Amino acid sequence: MPSHNPENEPDEAGLIRDETGTQSLIGYVVDINAGDGSGRCWLDIGPQHTNRHKALHGGIVTCLLDNASGTTGSLTVDETGKAPFLTISMNTHYVAPAYKGRVTATGRITGGGRSILFIDAELLDEDGRTIATSSGVFKRVPHERLK
Amino acid sequence: MPSHNPENEPDEAGLIRDETGTQSLIGYVVDINAGDGSGRCWLDIGPQHTNRHKALHGGIVTCLLDNASGTTGSLTVDETGKAPFLTISMNTHYVAPAYKGRVTATGRITGGGRSILFIDAELLDEDGRTIATSSGVFKRVPHERLK
Amino acid sequence: MPSHNPENEPDEAGLIRDETGTQSLIGYVVDINAGDGSGRCWLDIGPQHTNRHKALHGGIVTCLLDNASGTTGSLTVDETGKAPFLTISMNTHYVAPAYKGRVTATGRITGGGRSILFIDAELLDEDGRTIATSSGVFKRVPHERLK
Amino acid sequence: MPSHNPENEPDEAGLIRDETGTQSLIGYVVDINAGDGSGRCWLDIGPQHTNRHKALHGGIVTCLLDNASGTTGSLTVDETGKAPFLTISMNTHYVAPAYKGRVTATGRITGGGRSILFIDAELLDEDGRTIATSSGVFKRVPHERLK
Repeated sequence: MPSHNPENEPDEAGLIRDETGTQSLIGYVVDINAGDGSGRCWLDIGPQHTNRHKALHGGIVTCLLDNASGTTGSLTVDETGKAPFLTISMNTHYVAPAYKGRVTATGRITGGGRSILFIDAELLDEDGRTIATSSGVFKRVPHERLK
Repeated sequence: MPSHNPENEPDEAGLIRDETGTQSLIGYVVDINAGDGSGRCWLDIGPQHTNRHKALHGGIVTCLLDNASGTTGSLTVDETGKAPFLTISMNTHYVAPAYKGRVTATGRITGGGRSILFIDAELLDEDGRTIATSSGVFKRVPHERLK
Repeated sequence: MPSHNPENEPDEAGLIRDETGTQSLIGYVVDINAGDGSGRCWLDIGPQHTNRHKALHGGIVTCLLDNASGTTGSLTVDETGKAPFLTISMNTHYVAPAYKGRVTATGRITGGGRSILFIDAELLDEDGRTIATSSGVFKRVPHERLK
Repeated sequence: MPSHNPENEPDEAGLIRDETGTQSLIGYVVDINAGDGSGRCWLDIGPQHTNRHKALHGGIVTCLLDNASGTTGSLTVDETGKAPFLTISMNTHYVAPAYKGRVTATGRITGGGRSILFIDAELLDEDGRTIATSSGVFKRVPHERLK
């Protein structure tokens, strides 16, 4: 079982690692440092991330898009990128397979209000090729529900 | 890096384990034994599967639904549950959080033809509570593309 | 421009007609009479509802699924089937074409809570064939926002 | 019943009107003239297009997004904007209500290959505000299936 530390602060470069059990298990890195309001999430593809076609597994693709989107939502609240948002619904399009190297998901707010945000994300490989796109509905978690 | 064996055959109970790198990493089990055409995929939730709310991570939820759906597609081809299908698009609704125990995703064909299948799936916890639902578009991989 | 009457009450058979401009234009009928909590919405296909393949237009398919879903949400509030819900997000799968006769959409709650409901719907033709399926996120409109 | 003419050619400005029964009924205009590969579809909102909140009906929103997307697919084949594509799946996010004026949907290819295209679309009002976004899976109709 991997170790993780929910109190992890972003490091000097604005990178968050091992914050959750899932993050430690899969090994993706959250980057709140873009400066343009976009959360990013990247992964270096290894054999533990692939499906039977030796391509990046669709579940992990969605995981990266979901994390980039949620972090983008959090950055609308404060700069820590950790204000909690729940994923209500997410639609993913699997555009092309990725076999190796680093893939990076980037989120983008398309609309919303006080409690609901619409957030799109795109997963690109190192050559800038689109691997997958997503569009999701996210909900701000009220502070009282977290106690 | 977990080991896996793409040649793995279902065991006597119709369970497939460790077939892909992702399956070994996450630890879900594929069950082709329902006998009603439905593929199933289950996971015993551990701390390595959770998000910052200590609930099953949305990416892993989608992973289970995706595998149950793809396996259901494969079962339309033959009984091995391994005929390859690509996920074209998948929409997931995150209905309720799951914190512990076993969650099981079950697929169901809603329509389609020779190359495209529409497959819904539902993820339930041990008490039969709906954790998430999905609807996806899957494509049969032509045999020649696999060589 | 068709006439419509927002104050329209369901008739004796539990059917709602011409409640909105869009309903009058397209001519679908809302049926709150199933008795099982499902809202239904049906349409008799005419040439004004077809696309260039002479099949029921995808936009109208979605319109029927949306109305059946929203009505199903309203029926969780009271029996009028008119408590207002907003569609936040909806995913539609176009399973098979419909060319003629009556098509009927039926909604079904899959989960949710006080403000958000997850509602699936299915559109069938007279022979019970699945034409389309949908899954959507709906939000109860707070009473104060309606004044 | 409105009249329509499937043989309609785009007019000098690249606008297509009344091509299908649905187009005549709802009154939207298809514009293949952007020159950047994007199909567009616009509508001047009237009372016949509204829901019970007096906002543009979600079904009509989806209709506009669907037509802009399909036309964008057609423009990858030839300049007529009429090469037939089927909508396999479409996810729509209803971001903000529109009450009056002209709304315009614009499509954008995000990926795909010989038979399947992934197409996003966005619906804006006259002030450039996002009303809705969509992401869809479209399939080229083989020529032989049209005869």
